[in-house]
Amino acid sequence: MSAEQTDTTRSLEETVGELARRAREASRRTAELSSRVKDVWLLEAARALEAERDAVLEANRRDLERARERGLAEPLQRRLDLAGSRYEQMVAGLREIAALPDPVGEIRQMRVRPNGLRVGRMRIPLGVVGIIYESRPNVTVDAAALCVKAGNAVILRGGSEAIDSNLALARVLRTAARDAGVPEDAIGIVPTTDRAAVDLLLRQDRHIDLIIPRGGPELIRKVSRESAIPVLKHDAGVCHIFLDESADSEMAVALVLDSKIRQMAVCNGLETLLCHEGAATRVLPAVLKALHEAGVEIRGCARTREIFSEARPATEEDYAAEFLDRILAVRVVPDLDAAVAHVQRYGSDHTDVIVTESYQSAQAWLRRVHSSTVGVNCSTAFADGYRLGLGAEIGISTSRLHAYGPMGLEGLTSEKFVLFGEGQVRED
Amino acid sequence: MSAEQTDTTRSLEETVGELARRAREASRRTAELSSRVKDVWLLEAARALEAERDAVLEANRRDLERARERGLAEPLQRRLDLAGSRYEQMVAGLREIAALPDPVGEIRQMRVRPNGLRVGRMRIPLGVVGIIYESRPNVTVDAAALCVKAGNAVILRGGSEAIDSNLALARVLRTAARDAGVPEDAIGIVPTTDRAAVDLLLRQDRHIDLIIPRGGPELIRKVSRESAIPVLKHDAGVCHIFLDESADSEMAVALVLDSKIRQMAVCNGLETLLCHEGAATRVLPAVLKALHEAGVEIRGCARTREIFSEARPATEEDYAAEFLDRILAVRVVPDLDAAVAHVQRYGSDHTDVIVTESYQSAQAWLRRVHSSTVGVNCSTAFADGYRLGLGAEIGISTSRLHAYGPMGLEGLTSEKFVLFGEGQVRED
Repeated sequence: MSAEQTDTTRSLEETVGELARRAREASRRTAELSSRVKDVWLLEAARALEAERDAVLEANRRDLERARERGLAEPLQRRLDLAGSRYEQMVAGLREIAALPDPVGEIRQMRVRPNGLRVGRMRIPLGVVGIIYESRPNVTVDAAALCVKAGNAVILRGGSEAIDSNLALARVLRTAARDAGVPEDAIGIVPTTDRAAVDLLLRQDRHIDLIIPRGGPELIRKVSRESAIPVLKHDAGVCHIFLDESADSEMAVALVLDSKIRQMAVCNGLETLLCHEGAATRVLPAVLKALHEAGVEIRGCARTREIFSEARPATEEDYAAEFLDRILAVRVVPDLDAAVAHVQRYGSDHTDVIVTESYQSAQAWLRRVHSSTVGVNCSTAFADGYRLGLGAEIGISTSRLHAYGPMGLEGLTSEKFVLFGEGQVRED
Repeated sequence: MSAEQTDTTRSLEETVGELARRAREASRRTAELSSRVKDVWLLEAARALEAERDAVLEANRRDLERARERGLAEPLQRRLDLAGSRYEQMVAGLREIAALPDPVGEIRQMRVRPNGLRVGRMRIPLGVVGIIYESRPNVTVDAAALCVKAGNAVILRGGSEAIDSNLALARVLRTAARDAGVPEDAIGIVPTTDRAAVDLLLRQDRHIDLIIPRGGPELIRKVSRESAIPVLKHDAGVCHIFLDESADSEMAVALVLDSKIRQMAVCNGLETLLCHEGAATRVLPAVLKALHEAGVEIRGCARTREIFSEARPATEEDYAAEFLDRILAVRVVPDLDAAVAHVQRYGSDHTDVIVTESYQSAQAWLRRVHSSTVGVNCSTAFADGYRLGLGAEIGISTSRLHAYGPMGLEGLTSEKFVLFGEGQVRED
C-alpha cells in the first residue's frame, strides 16, 4: 500500500467515524424533540423539495446520464429516475408521515403492583439507524423521514449510481432540519461512493444501533456477514398460495392472478402455488389457464403436468426460487400437512396464504405457518406496511427478532419500563 | 495438530451440530404444542425433581467437591450449591411458570381495513434459544421452563464447574418431557465442558435464533464478539439515584439504603448517588450518615467531601464502576440537566431513579433518561421481572433491540401478521 493510499484510507475512516459520532450526538436531541418540531420539519422539507425541484432533478439527470454511459441495465435506470409522478409521490410521502401519530412517549400496560407501584412501558427511539440501500433515490427521503419521526438519527448510504441525487436530497432535508430546529446531523449521509465506506460503517457499533439493508440478496448477505451492528434483514420473498380442498374456484383464480401478475418484481409476489390433491381437477385447471393466458410460464410437478400439458417440469431450484418474473412453480400436495411442510422447507418466512372454505383448515394454517405474514382468502400483495395499516413502511423484516413482517414507525422504536412510586422499597 | 486432536475436534463439531439440528426440528413441534401439554410437562418436571432430589443433589455434591479441590472462590462455591431452600425454590419456580398465561397465539390490534380485510398480530415463538450461563445450576431449570413455555426449543450451556448438576437436571427435564408429549430435544444440553463447544454453538446461526448470555462481563463480551447469532446482552448495572432539589429527606434515606445494601452483588443495586446542589446540605448528610453506619465506603466529589469528611475522593473510574460491593460513588451536580448528562455518560442503560417532590422534574426524568428501567420515588431493586409483574425473568436486557429491561415470556416470542380475508385483491 502506498503512502497516499494509506492517507486516503485513514481519511475515509475519519469521515465515517465523524459521521457516526455526530449522529449519536444528534440522536440524544432528536429523542427529546416534540412531535410538533418533527412534523414542522417534515412539512418544511416537503415544501423545500417542491421549491428545489429543478436543482434536485438536475442532479438526478447527472446520475441518469452516467448510468446510461456505463450501460446500467434498463430496469435499474428506470428505478434511478426521480422525474414525473415519482417526485410528487416522494413529496406526498413526507406529508403523510407528518400526519401519522408520533409513537414516542406512548405508555402501554400501565398497571398497579400490589405495593402501589405503578409500572408501564414507554415507547422510546432506538438511537441511530443506518440504512444501506440500492438505486431508488426516493429511499433517501422516505427512510430519513421515518427514522427521525420515530426520534432517531439516521445515516444514509445509497447506491453509488445515485450519489448526486442522494446528496441533493439530503441537502434539502438538512437545510429544512436546521430551519425547523431539528439537528442537521440527525440526517447523515455518506458523502462518497467509495465501497470501503460501507465496511467502515458496519464497524461503528458504538454509535449505530441498527442497520437496515434494502436491496438485492447480495447486499443483504454482505451486510449480514460483515456487520458488527445488529441487522434487520429484508430478505427474499418466496411466497406461496395453498389452494385447499374446499377452495372456491373463482376466488382462487382472482387471488392467484392478483398475487402473481399485479406487479412482477416485488417481494410479496406469488412464486409457488400449492394445490390440495382434492382440488386438483376441480380448481387448478381454471387457475393455470388464466395464468397461461396472462403469459405466465408454469413449472409443475408430475401431477400438475398431467392436468396442464403446457407446464414444464419443476425442479428443486424452482421451488426455492424468487423468480420476480412471469414464471410460477406449481405443486400438487396430498393434504394441508404436506403444504405446511413444503412452506417450512422452501419458504422464506415472508407471506403465505391459504384459499379455503374450511374453518378448520384456515385455523390450522394461521396457527402452523410462521411466516411474517400469514393470510386466509386474500392476495399475497397485502404484505405491505401501507396496506396493513401501519401508515408507512421502512421495509419487510424476515427475521423474528425485534420486528417481523412489514415494519413501520413502531419497528424503529423500543420500550423502556417506567415506574411511578411513592417511596416503595423492596424489603425482602 | 495430531490426528487424534483432529478427530476430537471433528467429533465435537458433530455433537454440537447435531444438538442444534435436533433443537431446530423439535422447535417446529414445540411451536404447535397446546398450553396444556406444556404445563403438564412443567408440573411433571416439578414432581420428578422432588422424586429425584437425592440423585440430583448427589451430582451437585460431586461438582461442589471438585470446586473445593480446585480452590474455587467461596462465593462461587455458594452459588453452585443446590441444597436446602434453593432446591425447593427451583421446583416452585416450575409450578409458577405453569400457572402463567401462555403467550403463544395471542392476537392483538385486530383491526378492519377499509376493504374489509381483518389484520391482527399473533404472538409466536422465536424458534431455538441458546442460553450460555455460569455457575448457578438452577438456571438450567428456569431457562428451559421459560423457553419451552413460550413454545421454543432451548440449548443450554452451563459452566464447567456445574456440569454434573446440569446434566442431572436436564435428564429429569427431558424424561418428564417424553412422558408429557413434549419433544425431548426441545431441551438440549451441551454434554461436555470443552470450551471449544461454545465457539461451535455460536456459529450455528442456521439452527439457533437467539443467544442469551448470563454471567460476568467477560462472558458477555466474548459471546457478543464471537456470535454469528443475534445476542441479547445482559450487561453491567451501573445504576443511579438522583436526589432532586425537592427530594424528601426521609424517603431519600430509605430508597438509597434499600437500593444499595438490600443485596450487594446484584445488577440492579445502586452504584452512584447524584445529588442536586440545592439538596446537598438539607438531604445528603443524613443519607451519607446512614450509608456510613451500614458500612458503605463513600467515594465522593469535592463538594461531597466538604459535606461528609469521611468520604474518600471519587475517580472517573469510580463513576463508571459496577462495584457490587459496599462502595458507593457520590457526586453533587448543579441541576437535573447535569444529572441526566452524568447518567448518559457513565450509566449502563440499566436502572435510574429520581427522588423528587416536583411534578416537572419527575416528568423530565422519565422523558429524558432512556435506561431500560426509569423510576420516580422507588428503589432501584424493582428492576426485576417478578417485581414488575412479568411473572418470570430470563434476564435483564440492556440493548434496545427486541427486548429492553427485565425480560419475561413475551421477550422469548415474536409476532406475525395474520390476515382474515374474503377474497380481497389489491387491484391497484
